[in-house]
Amino acid sequence: MKILVIHGPNLDLLGQREIDIYGKFTLAEIDAALQKLGQELKVEVKAVQLAGEGEICKQIGAAGQEYAAIIINPAAYTHYSVAIRDAVAGCQIPVIEVHISNIYAREEFRHKSVIAPVAVGQVSGFGMNSYLLGLRAAVDLLKK
Amino acid sequence: MKILVIHGPNLDLLGQREIDIYGKFTLAEIDAALQKLGQELKVEVKAVQLAGEGEICKQIGAAGQEYAAIIINPAAYTHYSVAIRDAVAGCQIPVIEVHISNIYAREEFRHKSVIAPVAVGQVSGFGMNSYLLGLRAAVDLLKK
Amino acid sequence: MKILVIHGPNLDLLGQREIDIYGKFTLAEIDAALQKLGQELKVEVKAVQLAGEGEICKQIGAAGQEYAAIIINPAAYTHYSVAIRDAVAGCQIPVIEVHISNIYAREEFRHKSVIAPVAVGQVSGFGMNSYLLGLRAAVDLLKK
Amino acid sequence: MKILVIHGPNLDLLGQREIDIYGKFTLAEIDAALQKLGQELKVEVKAVQLAGEGEICKQIGAAGQEYAAIIINPAAYTHYSVAIRDAVAGCQIPVIEVHISNIYAREEFRHKSVIAPVAVGQVSGFGMNSYLLGLRAAVDLLKK
Amino acid sequence: MKILVIHGPNLDLLGQREIDIYGKFTLAEIDAALQKLGQELKVEVKAVQLAGEGEICKQIGAAGQEYAAIIINPAAYTHYSVAIRDAVAGCQIPVIEVHISNIYAREEFRHKSVIAPVAVGQVSGFGMNSYLLGLRAAVDLLKK
Amino acid sequence: MKILVIHGPNLDLLGQREIDIYGKFTLAEIDAALQKLGQELKVEVKAVQLAGEGEICKQIGAAGQEYAAIIINPAAYTHYSVAIRDAVAGCQIPVIEVHISNIYAREEFRHKSVIAPVAVGQVSGFGMNSYLLGLRAAVDLLKK
Amino acid sequence: MKILVIHGPNLDLLGQREIDIYGKFTLAEIDAALQKLGQELKVEVKAVQLAGEGEICKQIGAAGQEYAAIIINPAAYTHYSVAIRDAVAGCQIPVIEVHISNIYAREEFRHKSVIAPVAVGQVSGFGMNSYLLGLRAAVDLLKK
Amino acid sequence: MKILVIHGPNLDLLGQREIDIYGKFTLAEIDAALQKLGQELKVEVKAVQLAGEGEICKQIGAAGQEYAAIIINPAAYTHYSVAIRDAVAGCQIPVIEVHISNIYAREEFRHKSVIAPVAVGQVSGFGMNSYLLGLRAAVDLLKK
Amino acid sequence: MKILVIHGPNLDLLGQREIDIYGKFTLAEIDAALQKLGQELKVEVKAVQLAGEGEICKQIGAAGQEYAAIIINPAAYTHYSVAIRDAVAGCQIPVIEVHISNIYAREEFRHKSVIAPVAVGQVSGFGMNSYLLGLRAAVDLLKK
Amino acid sequence: MKILVIHGPNLDLLGQREIDIYGKFTLAEIDAALQKLGQELKVEVKAVQLAGEGEICKQIGAAGQEYAAIIINPAAYTHYSVAIRDAVAGCQIPVIEVHISNIYAREEFRHKSVIAPVAVGQVSGFGMNSYLLGLRAAVDLLKK
Amino acid sequence: MKILVIHGPNLDLLGQREIDIYGKFTLAEIDAALQKLGQELKVEVKAVQLAGEGEICKQIGAAGQEYAAIIINPAAYTHYSVAIRDAVAGCQIPVIEVHISNIYAREEFRHKSVIAPVAVGQVSGFGMNSYLLGLRAAVDLLKK
Amino acid sequence: MKILVIHGPNLDLLGQREIDIYGKFTLAEIDAALQKLGQELKVEVKAVQLAGEGEICKQIGAAGQEYAAIIINPAAYTHYSVAIRDAVAGCQIPVIEVHISNIYAREEFRHKSVIAPVAVGQVSGFGMNSYLLGLRAAVDLLKK
Repeated sequence: MKILVIHGPNLDLLGQREIDIYGKFTLAEIDAALQKLGQELKVEVKAVQLAGEGEICKQIGAAGQEYAAIIINPAAYTHYSVAIRDAVAGCQIPVIEVHISNIYAREEFRHKSVIAPVAVGQVSGFGMNSYLLGLRAAVDLLKK
Repeated sequence: MKILVIHGPNLDLLGQREIDIYGKFTLAEIDAALQKLGQELKVEVKAVQLAGEGEICKQIGAAGQEYAAIIINPAAYTHYSVAIRDAVAGCQIPVIEVHISNIYAREEFRHKSVIAPVAVGQVSGFGMNSYLLGLRAAVDLLKK
Repeated sequence: MKILVIHGPNLDLLGQREIDIYGKFTLAEIDAALQKLGQELKVEVKAVQLAGEGEICKQIGAAGQEYAAIIINPAAYTHYSVAIRDAVAGCQIPVIEVHISNIYAREEFRHKSVIAPVAVGQVSGFGMNSYLLGLRAAVDLLKK
Repeated sequence: MKILVIHGPNLDLLGQREIDIYGKFTLAEIDAALQKLGQELKVEVKAVQLAGEGEICKQIGAAGQEYAAIIINPAAYTHYSVAIRDAVAGCQIPVIEVHISNIYAREEFRHKSVIAPVAVGQVSGFGMNSYLLGLRAAVDLLKK
Repeated sequence: MKILVIHGPNLDLLGQREIDIYGKFTLAEIDAALQKLGQELKVEVKAVQLAGEGEICKQIGAAGQEYAAIIINPAAYTHYSVAIRDAVAGCQIPVIEVHISNIYAREEFRHKSVIAPVAVGQVSGFGMNSYLLGLRAAVDLLKK
Repeated sequence: MKILVIHGPNLDLLGQREIDIYGKFTLAEIDAALQKLGQELKVEVKAVQLAGEGEICKQIGAAGQEYAAIIINPAAYTHYSVAIRDAVAGCQIPVIEVHISNIYAREEFRHKSVIAPVAVGQVSGFGMNSYLLGLRAAVDLLKK
Repeated sequence: MKILVIHGPNLDLLGQREIDIYGKFTLAEIDAALQKLGQELKVEVKAVQLAGEGEICKQIGAAGQEYAAIIINPAAYTHYSVAIRDAVAGCQIPVIEVHISNIYAREEFRHKSVIAPVAVGQVSGFGMNSYLLGLRAAVDLLKK
Repeated sequence: MKILVIHGPNLDLLGQREIDIYGKFTLAEIDAALQKLGQELKVEVKAVQLAGEGEICKQIGAAGQEYAAIIINPAAYTHYSVAIRDAVAGCQIPVIEVHISNIYAREEFRHKSVIAPVAVGQVSGFGMNSYLLGLRAAVDLLKK
Repeated sequence: MKILVIHGPNLDLLGQREIDIYGKFTLAEIDAALQKLGQELKVEVKAVQLAGEGEICKQIGAAGQEYAAIIINPAAYTHYSVAIRDAVAGCQIPVIEVHISNIYAREEFRHKSVIAPVAVGQVSGFGMNSYLLGLRAAVDLLKK
Repeated sequence: MKILVIHGPNLDLLGQREIDIYGKFTLAEIDAALQKLGQELKVEVKAVQLAGEGEICKQIGAAGQEYAAIIINPAAYTHYSVAIRDAVAGCQIPVIEVHISNIYAREEFRHKSVIAPVAVGQVSGFGMNSYLLGLRAAVDLLKK
Repeated sequence: MKILVIHGPNLDLLGQREIDIYGKFTLAEIDAALQKLGQELKVEVKAVQLAGEGEICKQIGAAGQEYAAIIINPAAYTHYSVAIRDAVAGCQIPVIEVHISNIYAREEFRHKSVIAPVAVGQVSGFGMNSYLLGLRAAVDLLKK
Repeated sequence: MKILVIHGPNLDLLGQREIDIYGKFTLAEIDAALQKLGQELKVEVKAVQLAGEGEICKQIGAAGQEYAAIIINPAAYTHYSVAIRDAVAGCQIPVIEVHISNIYAREEFRHKSVIAPVAVGQVSGFGMNSYLLGLRAAVDLLKK
């Protein structure tokens, strides 16, 4: 069983930018932690970082053939990308939305996710752990 | 006389996703129907599917040199892509907006098209036939 | 097979008023073009122009007994007539909404159609041709 | 030179209903005062009271053939009748909007006139005198 | 003592259209039930169905001379007819607003009644029984 | 067959406070009138007055085991208590919302009921009689 | 009997600026026309042009001791000066609001007058004639 | 180390009401699952269900003396209880918000949590598992 | 002469929570200061802290029999409790609203008090002194 | 220690205008009461009335050199004068906002103070006493 | 060639107030820098600081006779002064709007400039340098 | 010292499209003018035109390693690209936003920049010169 993790735009800069908001860890550290938990939960985890909205749509559109679930941190696209929303809505595998920071404790425009209504659920505010909780949630869903 | 048809993001999945909204036909079937009608109307039809907003802008920007009109289904970008709007507004050939589903019978956020104000006109809600009506509209415009 | 065409308020003045918006053609010319296309498509077309909201409701309510489809240009009523919307929603035959001008390129209040959510689809912005495209759409629907 | 005065819905009840808002005078008294001022200003005044939106549209649409100007108190239709607005906008003679009460001193929804943007001007709040001032305004316009 | 019942636009189609919303009963059945309850409560009931906004205004304006109260289901006009609102406000007899369906459980735009603020009260959601409860309410008011 | 009547906060002060809005009758008088009508309609009526939102939720949650229907005047909670809305929505017996005053003729914030969308129907504006009409509506529903 | 005319900010530039909106006449020409009509109507007219909001408030506050009515064109202050509104509301003589251009045919923010609700009435859109109609309205009011 | 779990209003009815939204499991089953996971994670879990806003505030206010963290499903109060928000904001231990259903896939008014901005984070949409993920998140936070 | 002081939810935690907003003083210190000033002004002061909305309504409803005025800090309920508003509106003794912090210098949602329109007046932003100024205001009112 | 009191526009008319809102006392009476209380509290009070927004800004800008605090009733400017807000924000001495009437019990547009967020606090609704309470608040602040 | 620089209200306090927002430099230092750059660019620069909205209107209205361009920092008036907007719109010389701070990085209400739509352009956020860039822009415009 | 200039989507068409809005100059002419001014100011300027949102994010993310500042004309992305906003916010070098046209003099939706709040400053409306002023601003910032 394989699970796809999609990191949205600017997340390649984790650990360098705005560490008071996002923490000091890097994307590589998140991916390592996901790999470790994946082994523990006996699922294969594949992580990609993509800056383009179109590229993310394509990945989601194609994912159903290879993966059993998607964990996505849409980053800035969370708040306006109807294209990613439509990709998620049209996807036959469960999609879980995660956020490193608590998006509800930030600027007003970050309180709205256009993707959440078509995702299974959302985990927000636990730093790197949001991904790990999202992975557990995905595995629990697939076990049912 | 050549006419360019642009299919926006996620339309490559037609026939697989949400068939209660979009119908069972595939993108290939739309393109075949467009070719057939093109022959009948004596115009050459070229169709492309593009997921990236930037790519769509580039296609529209370059189209004037080769095509006499554009038929575009901007899909999710309909509702927020000012970039595509600006490409359409700056384009010297007529652009016609089409939608497979009736966007006014769906979620509130789909009722607004940022592109419609700069298109010649819009055809919405007739399934695959929206494209064919759009093609007829384009040919009629060019004949005037 | 008979198709009813309803022209809303003020459309009797086409060709006299605001020709930069609506064009120079008259209502009689539209009706003649509809008759011609109707013959070509082998459907009988009946067109009426009605100024009263109540009269339009009555026509729509009664149409199912005689007609197979309705093409309506609700004109100003497009933007607020819940009465016509309810008549359309309660009607057992398909209703297609057409507009001569591109309503999305005009004043903000014209961007919203209260009727579109209950129509099959909408054609907007192609001048007299919007009606003809609407007639084709109706015939295609009925052939399915 | 003839001037048409159109009284909108419910104005036939003037003098009977809500006299704290509209005053004690009747529609007949307004019409008599208009006749008297018309004679003084050497114009022929014709006044009609119409309850139906469609009927008002038809009167405005036809007025250009017989009258030189219209004075209209659209009453309740002031606030939502795009149909009357379109009739006024498409009319080739000047249209002046008048109100007995000060619509800006009443409920919020009465502060907006959808007709004012396409009228020549508006007179509001002077009781029966609003009509007389409107008639003077019309005659002054026509004299220019 | 006579009571006027006014059925607004499209209510003539009850029992034929959208029966999941409005139920299977017809307008004739409502009127029969009103007659029966009228006899029980010793009032004469007169019911009319009117599609035109202007006609409804005229009926309300004239009702005070013959009737002791009005029960009105303004149907679609509920949500925007300031003309009917003004007729009700100017009327010297009590007016009771009734709705077959629960308008608050339907589309957002049906949640607002422009007439309710000037009616005595409103009964909504009890199917045909809304009229009967309205009739009882009227009779109780008149008995006080 | 037993029917539960719930009076929301501050209704214990009826007859003492704001009698121009709520009338001179007391809660005891409403309850006596309900008892009398209950006997006539052959149902047992139990009435409680509760100030706390949580207490009202508990009563509604438990009511299904003993009562066949609920008549509720949520008073101030009408306008914001999603907790009571959820209790009503989750309740397996019909719930009818009643209001003494015409809430649509008062301050803007009283025009919205968050409970109405999940109630069977609403009766508003008939003074004490709103409860009696609500009781009749409940009994009629249960008889079907 | 004396009447005060107050011209608000920037009106000293009439005839020089934006003549497509305001016309070619100058403030001196308006004042001359007012004098002429004043003589005809047998009232003394005094006109001042003031750029400062505070100065206008002071003039209005003091006017009651000398003048019988005020005609004011608040110009830009129309749309936000609560200070002038309060001065008008507190003033014991009638105040009439006039506008040269049709403020409802211009930018959205010019459609709202914060002063109109406390004025007797408003005349808008008749060019220089708006002042003259306002003067007639004032004299008529004072004669009653 | 002890962790407090607070279930808000109406959650005592889980498994009985709206099982298409909330699932078939009962509150007792959630609590048993929390106990089991608590043992695994070596924390003591105490769960309470409270219907009253005031009671929830008191529990949160007092929790700091006995518990190391709070997991709260504020249910309906999520959307408006500033009182609970203030209790959470003033609390010296971390508070985690959980929801059984995906609140972003439900009615518009459920998309806003007034509590989320002052919680550490939020888990929404995973059914009973939302609580278990919340418990893991709490334990992970406390281990840091 | 007795005066009731009501402290709303979470105010029992003063001095422990968010001292940068609310200051370091405790509720006991406020009550002591009120007692001291009460003696100086020769009124008896009784203070209670209540977390429940229903309890606060009951206290206000009953207060008229024993107290001459109420000073209330509704805390979080300030912003949404129509129930407390209605209790205040229905109360026959004057009610004064006080706030420790300047609610207008905090989050947007704290700028609106639903209670202020029915209170005599409001004192906000002076820390513990807001209560003392409120007490003086109450005593001054009662002396008139 | 000197304290500056600034009375905004139109307050010179107190006692003459709208006495149902503002009371019968005059500005001179307020100033006398302030002088009397100032003597009692051992501070020197200087009061000025200013109609111009710019003049008020200048007074506030210069006050820090001579005064220890400012008490301001910005009157109509309360609701829109960002200029006065900026003067207050840039001022190094405490500024207290006072209102004679309860601004929250009046028109909607008076509920918002653009100045309150940068003042120390606000006293509203106690008539002339609002100034005296403001003076006490200022003296208490300065004593700390 | 002469250029007029207008500094709006409160700018005389630069260097003393809120230096974290506006910087430590004084108005005199800005004027000196403008003089220096003016000499370099061979234009004469005249700078004035004005607190009154009316005074600013008058300066702008008169400027065309002496100056070739205006550079204005409208300060607080930026956000609401339609009077200054109208003065700018009516002015025959180019007007450039400058801001010391980045108004888009401050409170929401500072994001909107009512003057920008009628200015040539805007420079915002570069501290004292915004003026110097504005001066260059003006000179470049005049050179064309 | 090197400075990166980023031109957003559709700017490659400058000089061909909508020249009444954007002017007749081409992108190559802007770049030449930037080179020339760069030499004068002794900085190296590198300019790129990018249509894709993701590509622009990547360029900004990587720029800090090679460039000292960024000048960006985000074109259509200005109004909605939170992705570019986040890239700018996370960037360790100063970013200056420029616009050829005066975005505040165009359609309402162009008045809002989601990027401006995280940029250093903005220059808008000076045609090609906006870039040159932006370059000067950047160099001045770096010199400090």
